[in-house]
Amino acid sequence: MRLVTYRAHVAAVARLGAIVEDLVVDLQRLGAHAGQPVPDDMLAFIELGPHAVVTTTALLKQHAGQWPLGVTVPLANVKLLAPIPRPRKNIFGIGLNYVEHVAESSRTLDTSKDLPKQPVIFSKPPTTVIGPGDAIEHNAAITQQMDWEVELAVIVGRRAKGVDKASALEHVFGYTVLNDISARDNRRAGQWIYSKGQDTYAPMGPVIVTADEIADPHALNLSLKVNGVEKQNSNTRHLLFNINHLIADISAGITLEPGDIIATGTPEGVGAGRSPQEWMWPGDVVEATVEGIGTLRNPIVAVGDEPHAPRKA
Amino acid sequence: MRLVTYRAHVAAVARLGAIVEDLVVDLQRLGAHAGQPVPDDMLAFIELGPHAVVTTTALLKQHAGQWPLGVTVPLANVKLLAPIPRPRKNIFGIGLNYVEHVAESSRTLDTSKDLPKQPVIFSKPPTTVIGPGDAIEHNAAITQQMDWEVELAVIVGRRAKGVDKASALEHVFGYTVLNDISARDNRRAGQWIYSKGQDTYAPMGPVIVTADEIADPHALNLSLKVNGVEKQNSNTRHLLFNINHLIADISAGITLEPGDIIATGTPEGVGAGRSPQEWMWPGDVVEATVEGIGTLRNPIVAVGDEPHAPRKA
Repeated sequence: MRLVTYRAHVAAVARLGAIVEDLVVDLQRLGAHAGQPVPDDMLAFIELGPHAVVTTTALLKQHAGQWPLGVTVPLANVKLLAPIPRPRKNIFGIGLNYVEHVAESSRTLDTSKDLPKQPVIFSKPPTTVIGPGDAIEHNAAITQQMDWEVELAVIVGRRAKGVDKASALEHVFGYTVLNDISARDNRRAGQWIYSKGQDTYAPMGPVIVTADEIADPHALNLSLKVNGVEKQNSNTRHLLFNINHLIADISAGITLEPGDIIATGTPEGVGAGRSPQEWMWPGDVVEATVEGIGTLRNPIVAVGDEPHAPRKA
Repeated sequence: MRLVTYRAHVAAVARLGAIVEDLVVDLQRLGAHAGQPVPDDMLAFIELGPHAVVTTTALLKQHAGQWPLGVTVPLANVKLLAPIPRPRKNIFGIGLNYVEHVAESSRTLDTSKDLPKQPVIFSKPPTTVIGPGDAIEHNAAITQQMDWEVELAVIVGRRAKGVDKASALEHVFGYTVLNDISARDNRRAGQWIYSKGQDTYAPMGPVIVTADEIADPHALNLSLKVNGVEKQNSNTRHLLFNINHLIADISAGITLEPGDIIATGTPEGVGAGRSPQEWMWPGDVVEATVEGIGTLRNPIVAVGDEPHAPRKA
């Protein structure tokens, strides 16, 4: 399934849907019609476990093309939110997880040129999350170095503690796209939460694709454009620590819970690594794409005392 | 008020209470008796804002010594949980925020000897939180360097974005004690979340003291003992960045929300900074104390494949 959190109109409550062709199918309403209760919220749905995915997929198949009245809305008419608009804890981010990105970071940032021996983990608060089309806030009083990072994000489906690599993918609910926005001039004593944790710095979506529909999460192209110009283009096969490794590693010490989000890292091509360096400014538009999931498009918008920060590039 | 989250017995639901002398007063039940609805949950209470503190303080005063039946339980009979058993996002931790601790860290860890120019922020997931008396899990397969850090923790009471230093303390709901447990051998490329973010690594409590009862949060003694021997002893007046500064700084980029927790940093005397270095092992007991709040006592307990890790000291 291609799951979304959506509002049918501006004032509507956020609800859980599945995209089928050019429609959003409201899963709670479809379930109610069929006498099978389905939650109206993504996190509640994830917590029901794998059986809910199987049952709901069957429900969709059974009603395809014969949707009951009031169960569908044209996709073009809705506002998509981040699939998980409010995570229950900080997003786990993985740094330096593509070989060429390790090299470019060491040239221009304060990181080592050696490949990390273990995953490098940081976090982004729930207040960073925005959805497709939402504004990434550029506060020129804080940053002059706003950067992009397209990433495949893993949505955890089952509680995991001490999971081994072989069975790690059984704990995945699905996948989405995350743009790990960073204010490169806001790193502090090596800690990244301030540079990566500011409000609106985690555009996410447009959909969560359930794990059963991604044949191999380690063979997905991912790319990113700024104002239509491609800046990043790689494949998840180049992940230094793959998803199995990340889940096993984190869960050795930290319990992973349903709805947790792991942003798996970005490939080469970030603004900090370019010569000359490039940053994003109000008026820019950034598009992050992962194969089989979709494209996440967000404008950069000025906030704060300097509404029209000059482009310094 | 001295607020707690408590269970009246092992199988009971967690509820919100206030400690008055040797009793726990159940605030929801007291409110119901008086015809004034009070929530039964700490986060819900915090979200009601400062007016709820004033009203509930008055309710307690009005009924003191004449408690209605069923409203109080002897403190000795209850199990105290962490005051906020499940934060809604990662705890904000502040590193290197006492001058002497910066010095000791630079001698033995990988941090700079220069004082940080801005607060150094990291995070601890909600799964780190345990209450008074709960076991800190020592997994010898992961760490041989478990360390202690007594800290004053600030509980945010009001949404804060772009707050100035002068008015920052108006956004504080109260204060508690947090022991920022760290596995010093689990730092990765300078990122601290794995070393500080493992399950059970944030003992918190025993109470939240509301801000109105702390005359000056920058004049509190704080100390820590391991097996009865004092290891840390300082005062919050030595904070490098004080609470006003921390709230102003974080909220410049990251919205602070009611119930957010900021652990303000630890003074000198951690195990990593001692000569020879000292670590905690199963069987040890650690006690963290902040003046006016109380003492948080937790045993270290072995988990994992090595149930009786040898003491290596």
